[in-house]
Amino acid sequence: MRIALTIGDPNGIGPEIAVKAAAHFAGSGIEAVLVGDAFVMRPYLARHAAGKRIETVAVKALDEAAFAPGALDARAGAATLAYIRTAVDLAERGEVAAIVGCPHSETAINAAGIQFSGYPGLVAELTRTPPERVFLMLVAAGLRIAHVTLHESVREALARMTPELVAAAGHAAVAATRQLGVVNPRLAVFGINPHAGEGGLFGDDDIRVTEPALALLRAQGVQADGPSGGDVLLSQRRHDVYPAMFHDQGHIPIKVISLLQA
Amino acid sequence: MRIALTIGDPNGIGPEIAVKAAAHFAGSGIEAVLVGDAFVMRPYLARHAAGKRIETVAVKALDEAAFAPGALDARAGAATLAYIRTAVDLAERGEVAAIVGCPHSETAINAAGIQFSGYPGLVAELTRTPPERVFLMLVAAGLRIAHVTLHESVREALARMTPELVAAAGHAAVAATRQLGVVNPRLAVFGINPHAGEGGLFGDDDIRVTEPALALLRAQGVQADGPSGGDVLLSQRRHDVYPAMFHDQGHIPIKVISLLQA
Repeated sequence: MRIALTIGDPNGIGPEIAVKAAAHFAGSGIEAVLVGDAFVMRPYLARHAAGKRIETVAVKALDEAAFAPGALDARAGAATLAYIRTAVDLAERGEVAAIVGCPHSETAINAAGIQFSGYPGLVAELTRTPPERVFLMLVAAGLRIAHVTLHESVREALARMTPELVAAAGHAAVAATRQLGVVNPRLAVFGINPHAGEGGLFGDDDIRVTEPALALLRAQGVQADGPSGGDVLLSQRRHDVYPAMFHDQGHIPIKVISLLQA
Repeated sequence: MRIALTIGDPNGIGPEIAVKAAAHFAGSGIEAVLVGDAFVMRPYLARHAAGKRIETVAVKALDEAAFAPGALDARAGAATLAYIRTAVDLAERGEVAAIVGCPHSETAINAAGIQFSGYPGLVAELTRTPPERVFLMLVAAGLRIAHVTLHESVREALARMTPELVAAAGHAAVAATRQLGVVNPRLAVFGINPHAGEGGLFGDDDIRVTEPALALLRAQGVQADGPSGGDVLLSQRRHDVYPAMFHDQGHIPIKVISLLQA
């Protein structure tokens, strides 16, 4: 399998991490293709990957005068995005199966006059996908959590949730889980309210949103359980992927689990 | 230290668990006082604590005819509450430092015509504390999370949160953490919105509620940080206690951590 590894901000720790990762993968059956400016990658390749065959895709994006490790520079921010665009292009042409992005600087990117609020929105734009149909899925230590809503207030997230949105997130989560090698993913949907609303005792949001979403998913052939409290589902861990309704419902357990199992 | 161990539903698994726990503690410096009907505890004591000195407080609550392990019975539900009332009374008189409640049946208790939605509300009522000034704190594997809101919809929780409520939860959390042996507890408050609102980008709730709550707490001498995203704070684990704003923000990590470290 080939994956693209963008070097991130050329003045950050990304190029070193990317080169070390590619060297680590060399000969493993996973082929990491480095994507970045050639003159940025060159010194890191010499230092950390001498004698190893590592494929690179050279992007001409950065002015050589702007290469200054440690410096925050709008030109480095613009280059970061150019590497990602090239990698998305490789993925759309089927040349890589996935993209791994190394650390970027949101400050440098925004200083370049580019509106950037994270990968989901950027990938949506580059792949001409409606942004409300792109969902972030976090994966760590065997746990996969997709996010129905993400970087918005809890109030806005509540107002924006519909059965169709939750079902779309469910389908995206199942498709991504299949791509990760699970043949027949079992999905379970977190509740919006505590205990998924406890039958209406704690709000009717789950009756109006997550329950009809599950009916949609099941009618469309997805093996789907819930809605149940995220705390209960994660105690059981009987499913392959979980759509979480809010940012914190997914980010909290993934970070806790990945740190404990690190 | 003396603690009260109520046996829970006399027809459930509580009496066996309580007796085994008390036997486990015998001679450890922690003295567990069993609270329940004497005739219910007797067979379990004979089976699981023979030869050990275990203190009991006998409550006359259950009709002997209603003692039928495995049966769901309103009389057992009423007895469960009688044991808890006795234990709270022991705590209020300073005879025990804490109460541990064994499994109860909410169905049996409610079948007895008693409105019961969990310990926080019951303890509030028995100790004549306004219910909005009682907070649930979960403790596992060195992590302590207090809950500003609990069994209510996210929408109701949002509407009910004020700087005063968050500060009251913070003070309660600090006091409880001190009672658990931490001399000078450092507290960090979770954000309401993702990234604690990202400076207003994701809603103004944190500007209106958690930030003023922290100002109140600090003015009242509490070492308090935040608001920050719960996921970020739990990745750092630099504080002794965390007030979470919503049920799931606290229940998800505590359950994930306690299972991983079990």
